[in-house]
Amino acid sequence: MLNTHIIGASGYTGAELAKIVHNHPSLKLAGLHVSAQSTDSHTAISELHGQLKGIVDLPLLPLIDPQAVAQQADVVLLATAHQVSHDLAPIFLAKGCQVFDLSGAFRVASDSFYTDFYGFEHQHKNWLELAVYGLAEWNAKAIADAQLIAVPGCYPTASQLALKPLIEANLLDADQWPVINAVSGVSGAGRKASMTNSFCEVSLQAYGIFNHRHQPEIATHLGCDVIFTPHLGNFKRGILATITAKLTAGVSADDIAAVLTKAYANQPAVRLLENKTASLDSVVNTCFCDIGWQVQGSHIVLTSAIDNLLKGASSQAVQCINIRNKFSPLSGLI
Amino acid sequence: MLNTHIIGASGYTGAELAKIVHNHPSLKLAGLHVSAQSTDSHTAISELHGQLKGIVDLPLLPLIDPQAVAQQADVVLLATAHQVSHDLAPIFLAKGCQVFDLSGAFRVASDSFYTDFYGFEHQHKNWLELAVYGLAEWNAKAIADAQLIAVPGCYPTASQLALKPLIEANLLDADQWPVINAVSGVSGAGRKASMTNSFCEVSLQAYGIFNHRHQPEIATHLGCDVIFTPHLGNFKRGILATITAKLTAGVSADDIAAVLTKAYANQPAVRLLENKTASLDSVVNTCFCDIGWQVQGSHIVLTSAIDNLLKGASSQAVQCINIRNKFSPLSGLI
Amino acid sequence: MLNTHIIGASGYTGAELAKIVHNHPSLKLAGLHVSAQSTDSHTAISELHGQLKGIVDLPLLPLIDPQAVAQQADVVLLATAHQVSHDLAPIFLAKGCQVFDLSGAFRVASDSFYTDFYGFEHQHKNWLELAVYGLAEWNAKAIADAQLIAVPGCYPTASQLALKPLIEANLLDADQWPVINAVSGVSGAGRKASMTNSFCEVSLQAYGIFNHRHQPEIATHLGCDVIFTPHLGNFKRGILATITAKLTAGVSADDIAAVLTKAYANQPAVRLLENKTASLDSVVNTCFCDIGWQVQGSHIVLTSAIDNLLKGASSQAVQCINIRNKFSPLSGLI
Amino acid sequence: MLNTHIIGASGYTGAELAKIVHNHPSLKLAGLHVSAQSTDSHTAISELHGQLKGIVDLPLLPLIDPQAVAQQADVVLLATAHQVSHDLAPIFLAKGCQVFDLSGAFRVASDSFYTDFYGFEHQHKNWLELAVYGLAEWNAKAIADAQLIAVPGCYPTASQLALKPLIEANLLDADQWPVINAVSGVSGAGRKASMTNSFCEVSLQAYGIFNHRHQPEIATHLGCDVIFTPHLGNFKRGILATITAKLTAGVSADDIAAVLTKAYANQPAVRLLENKTASLDSVVNTCFCDIGWQVQGSHIVLTSAIDNLLKGASSQAVQCINIRNKFSPLSGLI
Repeated sequence: MLNTHIIGASGYTGAELAKIVHNHPSLKLAGLHVSAQSTDSHTAISELHGQLKGIVDLPLLPLIDPQAVAQQADVVLLATAHQVSHDLAPIFLAKGCQVFDLSGAFRVASDSFYTDFYGFEHQHKNWLELAVYGLAEWNAKAIADAQLIAVPGCYPTASQLALKPLIEANLLDADQWPVINAVSGVSGAGRKASMTNSFCEVSLQAYGIFNHRHQPEIATHLGCDVIFTPHLGNFKRGILATITAKLTAGVSADDIAAVLTKAYANQPAVRLLENKTASLDSVVNTCFCDIGWQVQGSHIVLTSAIDNLLKGASSQAVQCINIRNKFSPLSGLI
Repeated sequence: MLNTHIIGASGYTGAELAKIVHNHPSLKLAGLHVSAQSTDSHTAISELHGQLKGIVDLPLLPLIDPQAVAQQADVVLLATAHQVSHDLAPIFLAKGCQVFDLSGAFRVASDSFYTDFYGFEHQHKNWLELAVYGLAEWNAKAIADAQLIAVPGCYPTASQLALKPLIEANLLDADQWPVINAVSGVSGAGRKASMTNSFCEVSLQAYGIFNHRHQPEIATHLGCDVIFTPHLGNFKRGILATITAKLTAGVSADDIAAVLTKAYANQPAVRLLENKTASLDSVVNTCFCDIGWQVQGSHIVLTSAIDNLLKGASSQAVQCINIRNKFSPLSGLI
Repeated sequence: MLNTHIIGASGYTGAELAKIVHNHPSLKLAGLHVSAQSTDSHTAISELHGQLKGIVDLPLLPLIDPQAVAQQADVVLLATAHQVSHDLAPIFLAKGCQVFDLSGAFRVASDSFYTDFYGFEHQHKNWLELAVYGLAEWNAKAIADAQLIAVPGCYPTASQLALKPLIEANLLDADQWPVINAVSGVSGAGRKASMTNSFCEVSLQAYGIFNHRHQPEIATHLGCDVIFTPHLGNFKRGILATITAKLTAGVSADDIAAVLTKAYANQPAVRLLENKTASLDSVVNTCFCDIGWQVQGSHIVLTSAIDNLLKGASSQAVQCINIRNKFSPLSGLI
Repeated sequence: MLNTHIIGASGYTGAELAKIVHNHPSLKLAGLHVSAQSTDSHTAISELHGQLKGIVDLPLLPLIDPQAVAQQADVVLLATAHQVSHDLAPIFLAKGCQVFDLSGAFRVASDSFYTDFYGFEHQHKNWLELAVYGLAEWNAKAIADAQLIAVPGCYPTASQLALKPLIEANLLDADQWPVINAVSGVSGAGRKASMTNSFCEVSLQAYGIFNHRHQPEIATHLGCDVIFTPHLGNFKRGILATITAKLTAGVSADDIAAVLTKAYANQPAVRLLENKTASLDSVVNTCFCDIGWQVQGSHIVLTSAIDNLLKGASSQAVQCINIRNKFSPLSGLI
């Protein structure tokens, strides 16, 4: 049993992590932590997340001495703000902990990325270089050897799982950028009150057009440009990405099916829906990514759906833990 | 055309008032105002409430000199916080304006009501005595002569319109308190970000059990005790109140029907649904209160539905304006 | 491992049962069945319920020869229409199967109940007498010895779990009928297209006032009359019951707390929320019933929330299986 | 006052038409009709659409003798199924009525369109040729002279209003097909029970990929190919179309703004939101189409939002009536 600590446990992703770790046969939920200033300090997590009552009632402890936590931890899950992860990860890494960071702090090793898109200058370039991008289905070999895993963002997970097999196999026309339209549930914005998330203000609306920071994350890890347009939808959980792309001349529907089938043959968290469409309700509250697609002439439309808090965050983090520690791929997840 | 000013115009009720006044054949929308400190100052109302774009694009003016506004205004609608209304109303009244206050500041003329339920001591007891409670269907005569009308709260409107005819006619057993269960849309909490209204935190939940300030408002104006349990529901607009009461011995279903029918025979904003049930969708975006009821043995269950922002606030205020100024009852409202 | 068959597996409750039985450490999901005429015959359950894909992909078999199924089954779960359960249960019982019926066919042993409320005459009065009402927290002893368990309805579960401790302890004034207002998600109406369940027709609305068949089920098993008013709400899953009652003279808030605490001290599926209110989101997708309450003077308001498909149907059925077979109380459920 | 008859008045669009015509200063709501077999015959429209109670309570008359109706009608609105419109329109046209058809029966004058996409062979090719496509902002001149106006579909309206100005001005790169992703509320599927529209089955899901009949309608009237992917969303009303396109080399953001501004300078039903995004809540229950856009490099993303039942159907039909009869453009609509 690996002693597992969750930092930033008061949020929606933190609560999901707590539940998964609690149920995981090889992990011991050793501590839940919030920032030292948090008004939630010493509150039971189940007071904030009523569905956990009777299952996980541990208190949220203020993270006053991260080194002391690091001393006791085998695995650290960072469900913290980007800059907090950036500051904390090296502390846990120095003590030899495995660190799974769900923020954006170690996802893209590029000079200007953090100043351009996250508003801070990265101070840990060495760790940024060593960090492995935790797209579980694609980076298993590197994850298995890494100490720091940067778990992908929610939109990037849904987008890349659909596009990556096609790009790797050169099935897409590089001259035409794939168009990714994605709609996210409101939980993607985190657990804090804001006008944007206020119940009466949510309908269906695009945002971050041409400037969302998940665009460069997707483009970097796919190795091709994309047009990414996120939307906020009137639901709590889930992301549906609808992706339109042009095929390389001569590529057939059969080629597409063959490549996708091969890519995910042994990947139990990806479910393929040939000639069907993914839907939110099939993936919400599950660890799965559903990918549907249809081809007509030289175009393809793919639909990719995940639960943003699970496959888009917490369950993918645990997939990475499983890979890193040679546990069964979906251990703790189904 | 009466010059009409809306104070507190940035909120949901303010926006509804702006639209109604704009469309009203006898009112001129002369000014939209917000508090002097509001960050919305000088913004067009249609920037905050996109549905108004092209219809009402007036700016929200900071209310720096209420006396100057009072000088120009015939009618003042206060869609302000309780204590703000309490402070402002006398200024407009002193200049001879008709004041329609949508807050709770002048609804209940009782010694301890404001200290107990609103957290401030009332400083304008004379106006509190003179204020007329604007339950349009029941107080028309007094409204017609009043200068200050206290427009009822949303829950009290739905509750009283159903119960008042029965109580006035002594059809309810006074020994058993009527039970009012009501579910409100989230807009009832106003336009401001809070954890309670945060999209992911809203499901269906009771609140304010035994201590909501609409309980004494209802009880005072009905003249009988009630048990009032409000709930927050996962929708934006509307209130549904389900009311259970015991009948006076010997009262029949026909008696009930006769009394309700007579009470609302000439009241176009109340629609009766004998042996049916009111539903939210039939009243949302309308000025109507739908009342359904069923009788079995010595019990009655009534359902009463309104749009909380309209019949529960803005359209009832305009009904009061119509009564006060001898306009047609639903002028500007259908 | 007990061979477990689910009859009526295509519906929402059937799908939940399939998932639970699949995950249960002591049950083997041996067969999923639908009626012989069903258009879903031979379809994988995961085609109808996409979230099951990769977890339970068994086909829905037409139930052509129930006796043959009975031969192989240890446990039979009937998630069938009332009259179908009525007809099938004796066949499985005759072969010695444990039968857990989620329909209303064996819940109330009264002469006129089935003709009055279900529209058919009961033909198996002997089994109706022998059937044990599967309110898990209250009938464990009888359930442990029964062959036929009639799992309670969704509304009755939420209502009785809140009221039963108080009634058993004589804390409620018998002269005043408790008022139960409950709001159910749309899945309570089953998986079939109808105007009532059509997306655009659902808002918030009472129905079945004074004549819903869960009223006599509740009243019979509580042993006292109640006024029960069900509502349809604009959400998929969950029931919130708000219950208002009058206390016996002299009963205090402490008495209430003591009785509820004692009643559920060793009942892990009931969670008590003294001076708080139950909310839908805390129970949806869980096997819990949350009960909150507040007392003022001689009145009490209780709120009771469950997932209608789980504690209101499938997870309660599995609680009964656990009791009957001496498994751990929440085995397979958390 | 023009005598106006609505055929197919029981549906969601029919109800909207009834309300608009009732409020229109130059139209007289002379009759509401349903098919001769309809179970809604002789029911008041307000029994089906509760929000109309007290406003429009006319009965739904079975259309037994269309010629007799035609005799009395000046204006006929067909809110009927495609083939019903196809059969009825010539009858009303023969009697000299103005016919505004909200179905697809006369929208595309192409040989194979109706057999390919609507499943019937068109029998009225002469009328198909004479019909004018009622995209109000673009075809006013032809509408003013037409007897038969084919009101555009909901998706085509949202899509074309955004794209047409750019295509007409040659601002889009013809080599790359614009990608239209659109999400519609459930009312777009009409008022009839089906599994697709059943409350619990609706989440967010694409459908009709590469084969929806609005694709050829859009492509024909725009004069360029498009990839159109419709989605069903978990809301009742509204369509949001997010459109991605490549600009002709050398086209700047300023060019785009100039063209859009000029196109809609005198079109009060279109509201432009430069560098902003359209949202559902701003257009639902209004007659407006909101169009936002952003340009980066050689790409543009436009968002276009309408109420599918209003600008996507009924209010656009009335815009056409207004144009045809020289009424004010938004008469009856704001």
